[in-house]
Amino acid sequence: MGRVVVEVMPKPEILDPQGKAVVGALPRLGFTQFSGVRQGKRFELEVDGEVTPEILAAAREAATTLLSNPVIEDVVSVTDASAEVAAVNA
Amino acid sequence: MGRVVVEVMPKPEILDPQGKAVVGALPRLGFTQFSGVRQGKRFELEVDGEVTPEILAAAREAATTLLSNPVIEDVVSVTDASAEVAAVNA
Repeated sequence: MGRVVVEVMPKPEILDPQGKAVVGALPRLGFTQFSGVRQGKRFELEVDGEVTPEILAAAREAATTLLSNPVIEDVVSVTDASAEVAAVNA
Repeated sequence: MGRVVVEVMPKPEILDPQGKAVVGALPRLGFTQFSGVRQGKRFELEVDGEVTPEILAAAREAATTLLSNPVIEDVVSVTDASAEVAAVNA
């Protein structure tokens, strides 16, 4: 079974209230090492067969049309993660 | 400037309504290649200096205590992504 991983992050110029909440909470829990946090999304798309270049292209199109809002978000990466699945099942 | 990327996904046995919504919407948009979708979170933690092993350890602890709910979510990875930042700024 194949898997495609799509990563989506808010654009740098867009306010990210979830990230702001995390960056405010970190020092209260003793984590003072981090100066900023942005929160985005990670999708795992399961494919029944192998991840072919066509499927990767379809995933790339789905990433920009359905999985992200191009006005406020960037698609960071669309990658074939089938190797990870195989490693877990081995 | 350094960056640590933390990836969090819902545990396999936990119902993922966001993923279910996406998997229902994909065929309506013509994407019939995907049999399942899970939606998780991706955090970018900014660090002022370099990402040292200590900072990576702190990020790992923050990932399990603040960035994820260990009852329903798994921390998939905590990685030093400083090279990506450098590549973008180069």
